[in-house]
Amino acid sequence: MTQVFNFSAGPAVLPKEVLQQAAAEMLDWHGSGMSVMEMSHRGPEFISIYKQAEADLRELLGVPANYRILFMQGGGLGQNSLVPLNLGGRSARQPAAIDFVQTGSWSSKSIKEARRYANVNVAASGEASGFTTVPPQDSWQLSQDAAYLHVCTNETIDGVEFNFVPTVQGNTPLVADMSSHILSRSIDVSKYGVIFAGAQKNIGPAGLTLVIVRDDLLDCALPICPGVFNWRAVADAESMLNTPPTYAIYIAGLVFAHLKKLGGVAAMERINIEKARLLYAALDADDFYQNRVAPEYRSRMNVPFYLRDESLNEPFLAGAKARGLLQLKGHKSVGGMRASIYNAMPIEGVQALVDYLNEFAGR
Amino acid sequence: MTQVFNFSAGPAVLPKEVLQQAAAEMLDWHGSGMSVMEMSHRGPEFISIYKQAEADLRELLGVPANYRILFMQGGGLGQNSLVPLNLGGRSARQPAAIDFVQTGSWSSKSIKEARRYANVNVAASGEASGFTTVPPQDSWQLSQDAAYLHVCTNETIDGVEFNFVPTVQGNTPLVADMSSHILSRSIDVSKYGVIFAGAQKNIGPAGLTLVIVRDDLLDCALPICPGVFNWRAVADAESMLNTPPTYAIYIAGLVFAHLKKLGGVAAMERINIEKARLLYAALDADDFYQNRVAPEYRSRMNVPFYLRDESLNEPFLAGAKARGLLQLKGHKSVGGMRASIYNAMPIEGVQALVDYLNEFAGR
Repeated sequence: MTQVFNFSAGPAVLPKEVLQQAAAEMLDWHGSGMSVMEMSHRGPEFISIYKQAEADLRELLGVPANYRILFMQGGGLGQNSLVPLNLGGRSARQPAAIDFVQTGSWSSKSIKEARRYANVNVAASGEASGFTTVPPQDSWQLSQDAAYLHVCTNETIDGVEFNFVPTVQGNTPLVADMSSHILSRSIDVSKYGVIFAGAQKNIGPAGLTLVIVRDDLLDCALPICPGVFNWRAVADAESMLNTPPTYAIYIAGLVFAHLKKLGGVAAMERINIEKARLLYAALDADDFYQNRVAPEYRSRMNVPFYLRDESLNEPFLAGAKARGLLQLKGHKSVGGMRASIYNAMPIEGVQALVDYLNEFAGR
Repeated sequence: MTQVFNFSAGPAVLPKEVLQQAAAEMLDWHGSGMSVMEMSHRGPEFISIYKQAEADLRELLGVPANYRILFMQGGGLGQNSLVPLNLGGRSARQPAAIDFVQTGSWSSKSIKEARRYANVNVAASGEASGFTTVPPQDSWQLSQDAAYLHVCTNETIDGVEFNFVPTVQGNTPLVADMSSHILSRSIDVSKYGVIFAGAQKNIGPAGLTLVIVRDDLLDCALPICPGVFNWRAVADAESMLNTPPTYAIYIAGLVFAHLKKLGGVAAMERINIEKARLLYAALDADDFYQNRVAPEYRSRMNVPFYLRDESLNEPFLAGAKARGLLQLKGHKSVGGMRASIYNAMPIEGVQALVDYLNEFAGR
């Protein structure tokens, strides 16, 4: 087997121990004679897998008892429609007003989709700076009666990560798209009304979407919200309103158990800080490479960078691939390079990339 | 490893060869050093998996060139909202009129959800018969200007299967929910405007939904249709508008390749006819068991049945389980028993069930 380090932004590297266990259990889960893929979602075997995954995630993130964890489908992009469809009813006035802070490509997509259902107020935008910073909170122009405030706390493409929890006005709920950094750092869930995340970065396979929602926000859906994506209905059915993505939930559960064994989110955060420090130090060593994000908002998970001499892009990528350093090409919308260093990227992988960065720069 | 036969209605049994290949490739797909779960959906490795799956499915079902195959999320229940959201714009009058034929639990769910977006006309219903038949086509009261006609060609819970293709009025598109019998029998795709199917019965893991849609029906969405579920947008992005359920597509691709090796859909249909014949003959042998569906509409895939003496239900299920005959309990809404005998159920499994039926009946 080839030893590689996979820097894909998602779907992304998974813990080897998880893949080994999945392979070993593929044809016969715990003596049941069935693959997890073959189990009825309503049978005792899968219910036990689901309950354990839910309990482990609740423990890892410290999710309070008055929050529900929903296992859904449709990805983060799906929630771009489903959040306004599920919360738009909070407003007496229709279409509802929604506040957004625009910090990169993902919040921009959320804004565009929300306009289908709501009056969108962009309270602050980092666009003028080329999405290299989070606009300071005291500059945000928030609405008086917003149904909610939406932020993307880690911009996967732009590499911008919030280092603070936004404060809201009155009882406006804070909605956070945490797709690309959930489980990578400690968070205080009680500060948020809704947290959502596509699974394919720090959680498990693509096709699973987590929604963590405070109880009082389950009953604010617009009548046009598709029944199968209505949070209240999903919560009441314990994510079994329709057949959930059972195998993806199983893999996510293995990842959660693995994280607990490693010491939980606090332990991962310590390692992630060290991985990011190593990588940014190599990029900052001289001007051969460049990361353009304001240092205090640099993402620990997604590290975009450019070669000063962009004619070297192809040789750089070819040399990386030859060393087993995969999927370093930047997103097509911004060019350059990107290294995603999620929980499952070992520090050895980051060190191998750093060694290559130094070698290629002739240091 | 325990030898079992799994009669679950879905998620359901998968071909053992497929699971073996998936286990073998779990940590290293074709020398890439990556699991399929870890691959970027935009990388050459996954694109090759996706293209092959699409081509094999097109060949297996004989999908004409003017139809697009979409790999989506949200299940068959999701399409209950997404079909009216994607086709409602066909009607100049809003809300649009939609015709339904009600043949059991699944078409009933589709009707309920469509009422959120359309004026629903139930053109015919089998409810008075307890959903034991398909109302004859000449009794259907179709609208003059329906946006489409919806049928569920195999009712998973009620065990009712269409044995004919409905005729439509003028250019009204025919929409068919084929979730629980797609790939089990030959179909003429050109007779349908839209075919959809959740994967977790005859295709692969839960969390993947197939939509086969004729080109001219891609541009009829209502403005409130969520962008990520808009068929035109999904088609233009070749199902990569958001991150698709990559691993589920991979497993589905292995199933498609396996079906081709076995001789394709026509070969499966011959085996499925024989499996159904065996099982219904055992149920009909005397009045110990009962299947209530009109013989000409009995499903080849989902066989619900009742014990004449229902006090024997628990001993029947316990004895079945002891013999490795799993998940035979009927759906809670109708009670009794149900044996789902999808493509991946070998004839040996049906024979084992028949032997047990005879033994339990004291024959």
